[in-house]
Amino acid sequence: MHSEIAASGSVLNRLRAQPPLVHCLTNHVVKGFTANALLALGAAPAMVEHADEAAEFAPLASALLVNLGTLDTAQIAAVERAVPAAVAARRPWVLDPVAVGPLTVRTHFAHELLAQRPTLIRGNASEILALAGHTGQGRGVDSGDATEAALEAAQTLAQRTGGAVLVSGPVDLMTDGQRVLRCANGHPLLTRVTGVGCAQGAIAAACAAVADSPLEAVVAAALFVAVAGDLAAEQTARPGSFQIAWLDALDALTPELLQRRSRLS
Amino acid sequence: MHSEIAASGSVLNRLRAQPPLVHCLTNHVVKGFTANALLALGAAPAMVEHADEAAEFAPLASALLVNLGTLDTAQIAAVERAVPAAVAARRPWVLDPVAVGPLTVRTHFAHELLAQRPTLIRGNASEILALAGHTGQGRGVDSGDATEAALEAAQTLAQRTGGAVLVSGPVDLMTDGQRVLRCANGHPLLTRVTGVGCAQGAIAAACAAVADSPLEAVVAAALFVAVAGDLAAEQTARPGSFQIAWLDALDALTPELLQRRSRLS
Amino acid sequence: MHSEIAASGSVLNRLRAQPPLVHCLTNHVVKGFTANALLALGAAPAMVEHADEAAEFAPLASALLVNLGTLDTAQIAAVERAVPAAVAARRPWVLDPVAVGPLTVRTHFAHELLAQRPTLIRGNASEILALAGHTGQGRGVDSGDATEAALEAAQTLAQRTGGAVLVSGPVDLMTDGQRVLRCANGHPLLTRVTGVGCAQGAIAAACAAVADSPLEAVVAAALFVAVAGDLAAEQTARPGSFQIAWLDALDALTPELLQRRSRLS
Repeated sequence: MHSEIAASGSVLNRLRAQPPLVHCLTNHVVKGFTANALLALGAAPAMVEHADEAAEFAPLASALLVNLGTLDTAQIAAVERAVPAAVAARRPWVLDPVAVGPLTVRTHFAHELLAQRPTLIRGNASEILALAGHTGQGRGVDSGDATEAALEAAQTLAQRTGGAVLVSGPVDLMTDGQRVLRCANGHPLLTRVTGVGCAQGAIAAACAAVADSPLEAVVAAALFVAVAGDLAAEQTARPGSFQIAWLDALDALTPELLQRRSRLS
Repeated sequence: MHSEIAASGSVLNRLRAQPPLVHCLTNHVVKGFTANALLALGAAPAMVEHADEAAEFAPLASALLVNLGTLDTAQIAAVERAVPAAVAARRPWVLDPVAVGPLTVRTHFAHELLAQRPTLIRGNASEILALAGHTGQGRGVDSGDATEAALEAAQTLAQRTGGAVLVSGPVDLMTDGQRVLRCANGHPLLTRVTGVGCAQGAIAAACAAVADSPLEAVVAAALFVAVAGDLAAEQTARPGSFQIAWLDALDALTPELLQRRSRLS
Repeated sequence: MHSEIAASGSVLNRLRAQPPLVHCLTNHVVKGFTANALLALGAAPAMVEHADEAAEFAPLASALLVNLGTLDTAQIAAVERAVPAAVAARRPWVLDPVAVGPLTVRTHFAHELLAQRPTLIRGNASEILALAGHTGQGRGVDSGDATEAALEAAQTLAQRTGGAVLVSGPVDLMTDGQRVLRCANGHPLLTRVTGVGCAQGAIAAACAAVADSPLEAVVAAALFVAVAGDLAAEQTARPGSFQIAWLDALDALTPELLQRRSRLS
């Protein structure tokens, strides 16, 4: 796994040398935190939400994130304009199918979006299973399914889109439909701060703008989030200060730290 | 008051043993902070805002919060669907009538919601007075009225809904229309961080999902917020770091700490 | 510049003696952070977004902020009602033309708003150039233009509105169309936290409510943000903890600190 970790280090260097501008159509709960995570890592956020402007802005950005967490009719309209504009301009785009499965509107919408072949998909096991058409155990943002149970669904989705899929969990799974990698870094405190998973979707979009392949981008996104979690958990055991320590750790990441800390298999 | 404090400790234990999922239809300013407060305490947040999905999600959640802080037409539609769905599924729901009184749309809407008998109501003295039909001195989120001046209004509201009311202030008032309790914990820095009161509404919803009575839930919510404020104020005298210390303190709360620190009468 | 710094100290004292209530119609990314910045400094925030209520609330507030960052159709409606109501009640109002230039809807809307003569305008060089009708190099929230290149545009705008303009950058420019001041305080970490510039718009609105002139208000807003940035950068070199340290520093500002630290010319 030495070369995969080195590739993530290279993604980190490129991202800081030429900060990608990530157009985030994301949920209301995490907008500020997502922007701060991108800035801490070294990328640049932009949230442009008017449907006409979302279409206009997508080609000006380096990548697009679509996160369905607080989907409403106005955001559906913006996403319907932004995704084709991003695809036409050959920008990578990420789908984060938050709470797809138990909720009807977003589940239908996510299946429609799938036809436009997201470069990356990021979700927990329940969301990935539901997006692939299986029946999961999800209850909103919490996964009721084990990560490994979503492996086949993730591979199917990656093959269908030609992109890569990241299944987040205690051990993250990453696949492009052929290869499968696992990241054992990370800490339970990452689940005690709202929006870490959503920020990972934005980070994955930033990585996709500079990586050599979709798989390289999801591996980098998994490592950045989880290794920063390990570093932050060495600073504090409480969730409020962990949130701040995690942002600081994203800023502190280096290729050397990734080599030393990554538990990739 | 020993037994009431013990009951709050029991609410805390139950909440952590089986984290209630709180459906928050709350204002844009505090969504992230509210989610982090619930997670720090040990509960789970979910914000589902599309009107169709809000109705679908309410029965899947353990409790519902309706906070009128940044009410707009889309949110009115979501609330109008979510509240009856929650009531039909016998889920407790909390009304936080932010800035009711001087603003017409939300004042009418809050009065309509009252007919659906919220399990809990949480507001400052001006909001509680206005909700009960009195003329208060409120100017947006700041109360212009003394907490004790709202006692009769709070009792009237509790009797009308069959639930409990929490009037927040330097000394919080809690009543189910019969009994009246007061919590003298808390620190002025709690008013220097946006969204503490709004987070208290979400915490009250989480408590209502596991408490034996509405009164027990508001007492627990008052104690959790105020005792955590006392603990945080021992860590810092500045509002930025206080915000973080307060989240850490929610995580650090134990039944023993509540027994030792609570100033309930 | 001694007297200008003393005037900023006086603005700070007045603001804390009688906290102005700032009606913020601002973008979704920064609402919580903006509210916390106002509270940390000593002012009071309120976000009222329903179009009918925005018109009703504007005269009850001390000042209005209009920030176009995540402009959508609902917010356009609210701004169209709030600005005339604020102007009719002789309340100062601030226009922050975020990302005006490359994005069509907000650029047209900002030009319409200009006719209602904002008391203050705050933006980066690209935004100020675009608002004045020049063609800039902006890419969303990042300025592609040097601050000094926007001096003439800023003077033109100030003369047209009869107000004052703040061009933010490594050295901030402030002008009322006649006088030009520069503030060399500030630290690169201020650009690694989302919403510092947006919070500055809200702080400028708070200052306008208590200052003797528009120019005095923008000078105070520039100094408060930048001197607090200097203080925070002495506490930490990482963006997560810098965000918190900056809020703490806003609270710690005094007229004496401003005198000692300000680099105004």
